[in-house]
Amino acid sequence: MAKQRICVDMDEVLADAIARFQEWYGRDFQLEFTLEALRGKHPHEIVAPEHQPALRAYPNAPGFFRDLPLMPDSQRVMKELAGRYELFIASAAMEFANSFLDKYEWLQKHFPFIPWRNYVFCGDKSILNADYLIDDNAYNFDNFRGEGILFDAPHNALETRYRRAHNWQEVGEMLL
Amino acid sequence: MAKQRICVDMDEVLADAIARFQEWYGRDFQLEFTLEALRGKHPHEIVAPEHQPALRAYPNAPGFFRDLPLMPDSQRVMKELAGRYELFIASAAMEFANSFLDKYEWLQKHFPFIPWRNYVFCGDKSILNADYLIDDNAYNFDNFRGEGILFDAPHNALETRYRRAHNWQEVGEMLL
Repeated sequence: MAKQRICVDMDEVLADAIARFQEWYGRDFQLEFTLEALRGKHPHEIVAPEHQPALRAYPNAPGFFRDLPLMPDSQRVMKELAGRYELFIASAAMEFANSFLDKYEWLQKHFPFIPWRNYVFCGDKSILNADYLIDDNAYNFDNFRGEGILFDAPHNALETRYRRAHNWQEVGEMLL
Repeated sequence: MAKQRICVDMDEVLADAIARFQEWYGRDFQLEFTLEALRGKHPHEIVAPEHQPALRAYPNAPGFFRDLPLMPDSQRVMKELAGRYELFIASAAMEFANSFLDKYEWLQKHFPFIPWRNYVFCGDKSILNADYLIDDNAYNFDNFRGEGILFDAPHNALETRYRRAHNWQEVGEMLL
């Protein structure tokens, strides 16, 4: 029987993009925000109005996606999944055209066991032909033909429609 | 009823990459090759052995995909298809990591009526969830869930397994 296929999102699923928001917010404004403050919201929604344009622009700035920290246990569980499933990376990279090469190199460095043939940079994730999509944005499950698994993130705390994985260990328990 | 979805490849379908091979081959070696010589073959297969590494490397060189000429009638037919179908661009851009931004900008310039949300840069095209894939490489139809339409190119002249469109006018006749 053919292996089932899993697509995995990058930002806030494999890579900790919030850590970069916190780092740059501190660098530019000498301010901090906590993960608790992000509950149900995105970073630009919890800062002062005059700082919002800067935070909205961060992901388009060169280097934003370079060297992002890994989410805990992601490498270990992904390696186990790779033995049992066809594993693809599916990032909405089209939103940030400067991010392509950073994201490509990040994947090569941290997930060398996933071939580049299995990377997908897209916009609308309904284009993915897969059995599972692990993603922190519930809107990516609209019209997705498989099952969406919501990866826990502060901004999606109020979403109740999908199976939720709170961390990579839970992803492993669900799928292995 | 939901619109049917078409994915369209870029190189040698929307963009004339062979013209760039011919141009650079002339620039570097003061030699020419014709489309007739390419029948059933790729450019690097028809040049002298000592020139083959250079031709293989061309697509990785900065600028290869920049300002590629358009295939005749592609804009007109694509615009008509966009009214009747959900239209996605699906390029195997992962093979040439330096090509991402060139390809993105080329699409924005020449096909502004297709939103960036409908761009897909991938490797293995079996990941596409679509009804049709218009592509010059028959191997991209392996495990594709919809119907493959082979866009005529010199290298695929000997392929007989798929419906063939010889040009964009024929694509329009098939799908409009």
